[in-house]
Amino acid sequence: MSSSSKSLLLFGWPTPNARKVSTFLEELKAAYGVDYDVQGVDLSKRAQKEPEYIKLNPNGRVPTLVDRSRNNLAIFESAAILLYLQRHYDKDNKFGFNPDTQPEEYSVLLQWLLFAHGGLGPVQGQAMYYVKFAPEKIPDVIARFIEETKRVYGIFETRLTNRDWLVGPGRGLFTIADMNAIPWIQWHAICGIDSIDEWPNMKAWIARAEARPAFKAGIELMYTTVTARPRL
Amino acid sequence: MSSSSKSLLLFGWPTPNARKVSTFLEELKAAYGVDYDVQGVDLSKRAQKEPEYIKLNPNGRVPTLVDRSRNNLAIFESAAILLYLQRHYDKDNKFGFNPDTQPEEYSVLLQWLLFAHGGLGPVQGQAMYYVKFAPEKIPDVIARFIEETKRVYGIFETRLTNRDWLVGPGRGLFTIADMNAIPWIQWHAICGIDSIDEWPNMKAWIARAEARPAFKAGIELMYTTVTARPRL
Repeated sequence: MSSSSKSLLLFGWPTPNARKVSTFLEELKAAYGVDYDVQGVDLSKRAQKEPEYIKLNPNGRVPTLVDRSRNNLAIFESAAILLYLQRHYDKDNKFGFNPDTQPEEYSVLLQWLLFAHGGLGPVQGQAMYYVKFAPEKIPDVIARFIEETKRVYGIFETRLTNRDWLVGPGRGLFTIADMNAIPWIQWHAICGIDSIDEWPNMKAWIARAEARPAFKAGIELMYTTVTARPRL
Repeated sequence: MSSSSKSLLLFGWPTPNARKVSTFLEELKAAYGVDYDVQGVDLSKRAQKEPEYIKLNPNGRVPTLVDRSRNNLAIFESAAILLYLQRHYDKDNKFGFNPDTQPEEYSVLLQWLLFAHGGLGPVQGQAMYYVKFAPEKIPDVIARFIEETKRVYGIFETRLTNRDWLVGPGRGLFTIADMNAIPWIQWHAICGIDSIDEWPNMKAWIARAEARPAFKAGIELMYTTVTARPRL
């Protein structure tokens, strides 16, 4: 994996989980000049299940990050990638907290990151499946996953009372906890929730992230560069 | 929350997510003498949705950990609690890795922790719901969640080839990554998977954990002490 001079190689596709990482990589590029390569993993061709890819990501999903500067360490699970990048590439803790000097904020960040990782993505993903892909539309099952997604949205809504971002003192700091959640919520419409008007704090939070050029570039990136495929 | 001399207070109930934490607390007690209180949150009475509890855990679930020694910091999300306890109460890194001196092992631990947090619990929990609790038994939906749970079991099975534990050099170290996953798999039978014989590495892994007195005590604890209710 040494044909590029860039340390980081993201394997992705235009999905919420890959976008968690591409938004952070773009933020790191804007803040520190971190550069990286992107390789598409064509889910429509089930490329995520090919043996070469499974060696990097035993779960057979996107995204995966490879750090060529660390003996090609391959990292799977979107939130684990965010934590890795924040620790090793965000030296000034612009997007997170120092676990030694800010242990409480660091724990609160982990709590919200894990809440989204276990409570938002898996549930909204099931809503999407049953709304959009399941061969049979089963009203009770669709309703169950949409209601649970809305319950989770309500928890973000309450948390964002008098806050700009999920974590941090005062109105908060834009961190990987936000980046871990927002790309899923941006997909609400294809998951059966047409409008997010009933959660105004949450809606404003997403607009605030989208107003960041780097965040926006990271969201778009997965559409525009997945065809650029640096060699392993 | 100062009526007890013990720093830590666990709010729980006999569920897989609460047991992730009670097993680790028992391991910390055996290794370091860490002591703690337990308070039951009676899910059958929806105590997890009471306003006083929601102040501690905005998601309204078990477990929650309160650290009285840190200004009553309340921590929600089982995996966030494990990470907090490992950082602050496992000084010798007997159950995890030092993020500064062992950054790669630390990342690998996070990856397996997050894989279980996002991929095992949420899916097996849905299998349980549709097998056991849903008013209508819908064969296609039951099959979907059981199959996905089995896929996840297969990933643990492969990972555990020539390994005793998920993470660490050689045959691995018993860490919070194991404690984060095993309590869910122990519930396989009530989630529609009668036997785990087809995953022998995984089965041996669970037996290995259950042979640890502290782990076993942590699993049992949620049955035996939830009625002991120290005051807040």
